[in-house]
Amino acid sequence: MKKLVNDPKNVVAEAVAGFGAAHADIVRVSTDPVYIVRGDAPVSGKVGLVSGGGSGHEPLHGGFVGFGMLDAAVPGAVFTSPTPDPILAATKAVDGGAGVLHIVKNYTGDVLNFETAADLAAAEGIDVRSVIVNDDVAVKDSLYTAGRRGVAGTVLVEKIAGAAAERGDSLDAVAAVAEKVISQVRSMGVALTPCVVPHAGEGSFTLADDEIEIGIGIHGEPGRARIKLEPADAIVDRLLGPILEDIPFVRGDQVLLFVNGMGGTPQIELYIVFRRAAEVLAEQGITVVRTLVGNFTTSLEMQGTSITVLKLDDELTSLWDAPVQTAALRWGR
Amino acid sequence: MKKLVNDPKNVVAEAVAGFGAAHADIVRVSTDPVYIVRGDAPVSGKVGLVSGGGSGHEPLHGGFVGFGMLDAAVPGAVFTSPTPDPILAATKAVDGGAGVLHIVKNYTGDVLNFETAADLAAAEGIDVRSVIVNDDVAVKDSLYTAGRRGVAGTVLVEKIAGAAAERGDSLDAVAAVAEKVISQVRSMGVALTPCVVPHAGEGSFTLADDEIEIGIGIHGEPGRARIKLEPADAIVDRLLGPILEDIPFVRGDQVLLFVNGMGGTPQIELYIVFRRAAEVLAEQGITVVRTLVGNFTTSLEMQGTSITVLKLDDELTSLWDAPVQTAALRWGR
Repeated sequence: MKKLVNDPKNVVAEAVAGFGAAHADIVRVSTDPVYIVRGDAPVSGKVGLVSGGGSGHEPLHGGFVGFGMLDAAVPGAVFTSPTPDPILAATKAVDGGAGVLHIVKNYTGDVLNFETAADLAAAEGIDVRSVIVNDDVAVKDSLYTAGRRGVAGTVLVEKIAGAAAERGDSLDAVAAVAEKVISQVRSMGVALTPCVVPHAGEGSFTLADDEIEIGIGIHGEPGRARIKLEPADAIVDRLLGPILEDIPFVRGDQVLLFVNGMGGTPQIELYIVFRRAAEVLAEQGITVVRTLVGNFTTSLEMQGTSITVLKLDDELTSLWDAPVQTAALRWGR
Repeated sequence: MKKLVNDPKNVVAEAVAGFGAAHADIVRVSTDPVYIVRGDAPVSGKVGLVSGGGSGHEPLHGGFVGFGMLDAAVPGAVFTSPTPDPILAATKAVDGGAGVLHIVKNYTGDVLNFETAADLAAAEGIDVRSVIVNDDVAVKDSLYTAGRRGVAGTVLVEKIAGAAAERGDSLDAVAAVAEKVISQVRSMGVALTPCVVPHAGEGSFTLADDEIEIGIGIHGEPGRARIKLEPADAIVDRLLGPILEDIPFVRGDQVLLFVNGMGGTPQIELYIVFRRAAEVLAEQGITVVRTLVGNFTTSLEMQGTSITVLKLDDELTSLWDAPVQTAALRWGR
């Protein structure tokens, strides 16, 4: 295992400290318990947004803390849910009196620990609501998950719900717009290589030199099929087909097309993927009106990509376009 | 070789097409010859900025085309200089009557081809100036280079010179501020793994399972030493020492600290590197007042990092802070 780490036990603590030092204009960090919070939290009268989950998917979620997006992010150990304590502490830290929304990816541990934290916060008089992101169409149930997994679509939920909270929407309204995004976003991914969890020291799974995993989870969970490597365009077609059939997306839809890198994929490959995905959508009469390309929901150094399509309407488009100022997404400010 | 590509011969053409489709709000692309240009180019009365070089270092340079930064980028084949023709075409496309600045990384092929293009442009009546970026302190001469190599510091030159051009500075003034950045910026990198050029199909060099290359070039050129893997903090110290000694940086300096990913390094590792680098600078009385962390000058899927330090003054800080709107750097707009 070759990594830029010191003691594998300290990876998350040191990375969070570095993150806090690098982005002190946007966030502050708590080290015990560990969470990342917007520099001006709590914002009085604003709904607070908290997300979190295992580390190793950066910039998800800490990179999305700031104006117009999350109020706090709670990183667990690598690929391990945070415990209720730091989630509770983060929830209290962002409570500005208008309630707090938890944005939770659908993994059993995350769901359970966020639920416990929400109960504890409620007992302290904080109004907490939760939404569960489950955008991955690859498999119904999976390692760590009952039901569909939450993957890169989470970024879009956080951005759009964050904009709704920033403009002053109520807790009910912010939760409703988050649910709307969840109902209209679908994703699927592929892995070319496994990733190595620092404290494990070896690959989370193995793939032969000519094999790829279609429908991979962001922790390396099995997908739909292990197949021989194919040209990029054929792989894109395998990912996009199940996405488009699912809601389904139809001719005349306006969408946000998001090509996400798994961490170790060169950017030129992501744009080759984007090119084909945009081409397929155009052929089907679906109009790409917003785009996002890059490493936003990663699996450490995994090589691979995921495609996410979000059906837009005027409200979602306008919330997507609203100003945001985080370490990983920033515009209009 | 596992890559998300179709025909390796078409990697750059397809990636540029995808880039143009993804960022049509910011750029347009020319396919023959291949270059990427700001959507509103030429901007009348503004100095035009053109950079370029071999592909495989994305987002350098195409990701930095847009308001407040480059007017055009000219991508060659992977790790191969673009020829004079597309450089000339890009130069003409961005000429708004106030002259054009070429920002060239110091590699023999790039220097030669940009020089030829500048001569051809001058023959057509365009006032062209060039600056050569050579921020890599690792080695004096190298594969492909007489003198020091140009690496990640190029991003800072492009941002700051771009801001100067955007505020209406003359060609002489924009060239002068670019030269000032070049004189005050130093970098050094490390590779944990090699990268694979698509048309070659195998690693550009080899490293044993426990070896790293200190002072690596962005095309995998040899650095200062091949050593056994060490803790991240020790590696940071090996990179930062030669950087700080070079100008030298001294107590009281205000700097921009830039931790760059080589393409395949998880973001948590980059922040572990940032943490130590910031700590060392603080110990030496050097104040980090601006930061940049992420994959900005990559070597395909290479795992590794480089550290760049730029000595700031009020003028450079204000130009760094000025609004920018490109695919890879965006703020204040």
